[in-house]
Amino acid sequence: MAITTAFGAIDAATGELLEGDFYPAGKEDVDTAMALAVQAFPVYKNIDKDRKAAFLRAIANEILELGDTLIERACAESGLPAGRIQGERGRTVGQLNLFADLVAEGSWVEAIIDSEQPERQPAPRPDIRRMLVPLGPVVVFGASNFPLAFSVAGGDTVSALAAGCPVIVKAHAAHPGTSALVASAIAKAVLATGMPEGVFSMLFDSGYEVGALLVKHPKTKAVTFTGSFKGGMALSKLAAERPVPVPVFAEMGSINPVLLLPEALELRAEAIAAQYAASITMGAGQFCTNPGLLLGIASSGLTRFKEGLKDKISEISSSTMLTKGICDNYHSLSSALLKEKEVSLLVKSEFSTEGVSNQALATVAEVSAKVFLENPSLKEEIFGPWSLLVVAENPAELEAVLHFIGGQLTVSVMAEDSDLEAFSGLFDAAEDITGRILLNGVPTGVEVCAAMQHGGPFPATSDSRFTSVGTTAIRRFVRPLSWQNWDKKLLPAALQDGNPLNIWRMVDQTMTK
Amino acid sequence: MAITTAFGAIDAATGELLEGDFYPAGKEDVDTAMALAVQAFPVYKNIDKDRKAAFLRAIANEILELGDTLIERACAESGLPAGRIQGERGRTVGQLNLFADLVAEGSWVEAIIDSEQPERQPAPRPDIRRMLVPLGPVVVFGASNFPLAFSVAGGDTVSALAAGCPVIVKAHAAHPGTSALVASAIAKAVLATGMPEGVFSMLFDSGYEVGALLVKHPKTKAVTFTGSFKGGMALSKLAAERPVPVPVFAEMGSINPVLLLPEALELRAEAIAAQYAASITMGAGQFCTNPGLLLGIASSGLTRFKEGLKDKISEISSSTMLTKGICDNYHSLSSALLKEKEVSLLVKSEFSTEGVSNQALATVAEVSAKVFLENPSLKEEIFGPWSLLVVAENPAELEAVLHFIGGQLTVSVMAEDSDLEAFSGLFDAAEDITGRILLNGVPTGVEVCAAMQHGGPFPATSDSRFTSVGTTAIRRFVRPLSWQNWDKKLLPAALQDGNPLNIWRMVDQTMTK
Repeated sequence: MAITTAFGAIDAATGELLEGDFYPAGKEDVDTAMALAVQAFPVYKNIDKDRKAAFLRAIANEILELGDTLIERACAESGLPAGRIQGERGRTVGQLNLFADLVAEGSWVEAIIDSEQPERQPAPRPDIRRMLVPLGPVVVFGASNFPLAFSVAGGDTVSALAAGCPVIVKAHAAHPGTSALVASAIAKAVLATGMPEGVFSMLFDSGYEVGALLVKHPKTKAVTFTGSFKGGMALSKLAAERPVPVPVFAEMGSINPVLLLPEALELRAEAIAAQYAASITMGAGQFCTNPGLLLGIASSGLTRFKEGLKDKISEISSSTMLTKGICDNYHSLSSALLKEKEVSLLVKSEFSTEGVSNQALATVAEVSAKVFLENPSLKEEIFGPWSLLVVAENPAELEAVLHFIGGQLTVSVMAEDSDLEAFSGLFDAAEDITGRILLNGVPTGVEVCAAMQHGGPFPATSDSRFTSVGTTAIRRFVRPLSWQNWDKKLLPAALQDGNPLNIWRMVDQTMTK
Repeated sequence: MAITTAFGAIDAATGELLEGDFYPAGKEDVDTAMALAVQAFPVYKNIDKDRKAAFLRAIANEILELGDTLIERACAESGLPAGRIQGERGRTVGQLNLFADLVAEGSWVEAIIDSEQPERQPAPRPDIRRMLVPLGPVVVFGASNFPLAFSVAGGDTVSALAAGCPVIVKAHAAHPGTSALVASAIAKAVLATGMPEGVFSMLFDSGYEVGALLVKHPKTKAVTFTGSFKGGMALSKLAAERPVPVPVFAEMGSINPVLLLPEALELRAEAIAAQYAASITMGAGQFCTNPGLLLGIASSGLTRFKEGLKDKISEISSSTMLTKGICDNYHSLSSALLKEKEVSLLVKSEFSTEGVSNQALATVAEVSAKVFLENPSLKEEIFGPWSLLVVAENPAELEAVLHFIGGQLTVSVMAEDSDLEAFSGLFDAAEDITGRILLNGVPTGVEVCAAMQHGGPFPATSDSRFTSVGTTAIRRFVRPLSWQNWDKKLLPAALQDGNPLNIWRMVDQTMTK
């Protein structure tokens, strides 16, 4: 039997130990959780859609029942302010209810029916019916930067559960107490709604061993991860080398370029500066969609934008980062980048919160497009309240920078109508590198809805064909299955004659309900 | 400059050289084809849907225009009979027209619109619109066993072109003349419908070098392959090791188990035997869906089935295989399997076509489930007119065999109503391992339609979430892109207010047209 040492939870702002001991799982725990998940799968996948929806809603309610206990613990463990954590709880509960609606409505299974054509020549056409079915046990890695919305009961867990897959969460070591609270809420919901025990498990680890065991486990069917490029690639490699490879949906970061077009700057440089100063520093800049690259053409408008940014950023006080490791990284990467050739400091926040741990000061650096295009290290993501202003001489350099930086979660465009006309040639290049393109807004604050795409070409995510935010995130955990001339009584309800579930279906090439 | 040696085309049935010299491409040709594809992409993807549909229909017409020249050449190069090649041309032309219909109808882009909610609290909701957009240049490997329907203008090419992706085909060396004819038809269609030159290219190679260069080329966005497990895995590995990994959709074979249930055998053992003798030997058994595993419980019905199979198979004359390599493999693998412990020969066709090359005799072997479950080498696919009858003692062994064999393209069930009731517990296991489950039919003869799923859990295919046959095959070559608060005039037509394309869209959670 393995001897495990407890690890503790750290208060991000004080560096002190919080209440509670947490134990890293061993190989036996991994096997037990997976055996339970395997046992639960055939039961859970066949539970009717209304009961599944009720389960998801019950999780939402149980999370709300945790009240301020959850808010306080998450604030302490993450260093994030209460308003932000309350908002994140709202998003988490909203996601659970949104997926409950999706499951209850039922059309997401994409039922397609092609009827028999017994008279067709040269051969009769059989009756073929297809729908999406769940893959099986899904391993979810909790994210450091969303202790609620992308952790234990976050977007990955809810979309996998909605799909009909059991979930095993590897809790993030930075917020074990928060994770335990949310897991207890899910456990209550499992009991209250009569779900099979193994539909959800959670395991702790302070290192990488449990995660690796989970990814390599023969019964694992898919993996989700939100974090660093290095972490995402390591998991993808493990998964690809399995005897039976499985998909890893890794969201690995992005610098989210912002195109600052001339007429927009001319008309509202100061307002744009204020908008972006807020976006860069929100949540200590610890968002996958943090605008890490500001891109404009030298002009008087851009000069005003720089002045505006200086004013705003310098007024922003330091903020607590999620962990000491993240904070140390922020300091070393931002310092190193500022030492790169011909990179200069534009502004660094002047207000430091004394005596509080893990503080980051917002920083914006500046470089010419010419220099940027010759130094790939300048396009690496720096996780935190950081952005790099790249100043181009002409529109061609803007396009060159877009091609150079590669796959991104978002591209933002700040533009007036005249800019949109003058720079329309840029947008094809912008669309080619991103999963979301937005006009006159900021990329932070990802809307959870059906039309959201949160996933971009590599290296932003490991698979740009899927999203981790919004209802279509469910597609990561399903595959199509066709039934040919199958017995009418044995067909799943979604495919039966008469459409008993009253869902949208494609029947003989026609959408019908 | 590289010096390349021409290779010739071989008549499969005579082993003689056919007319025509074919030259392996060099690295420069790969670069040129890809540069043209990259140039074509932004033009082609923005061509309106009706013109794209017209292009696909023009390819279909140009293939028909080739007339008997194409049929004769394909028969000679493949050894397949004229009826089969005519049928395959029908399928190929049918696929092109089916995808033309799909493109012209337009709803396949899955347009989703979530409207702005400016009054929402705590923050307004932006306008978000999402649709599927093409990935970019796709590399298609021609398949040996479908010289038309899964080669130059086959299912992979047509679904990639329909998606808006340029295609580069690596022609299969076993049918270069057929490939050249079809490529000439596509080239005519490109010219006639005013498509950009680089939307289609084809390269020859008698070895593996050109394929590897294409998969590793930085501009390649996706790869399709139909062939051996070894070939598919080698390409997947190359693609995963790229600095920017790309998906490989590899269809790598399957033994397509057939569950012969007792009451069905009792009532119609001889008819089932006749049906399966035909399915096993059709096209010299060279189908991905060839029923390579017959699975039943020892009974008098099963004994009658065996007798029926013996009668039918022994009457079937030998058939010409696609290539000498495939034929040699068939002989060595089937001989080796017959030497495995406790495997016996049930029947081998007695009629041999004298003096013709590459002849395969249909063969069925027999083994007990007990022995089968202990010898993984018995579950390897043998490409050709081969099947292995596995005889179980009880229903539990049937289920054990299903779990043991792993991912499959198809599972067939021969059953009466009483069988379906008695064995209903088996179907969950069957569904878990396959992409298509069918009742009282044969798996060969894959219907090309919207509801078809031709892709199963690994190792049947590299990614069970996608199909290579049917209209949803288009999804392999697209990714979602969201536009947030984007300029109304600049939005793609599919996402514009007023629905100018008159397609099905999900607007604020409601399907509407």
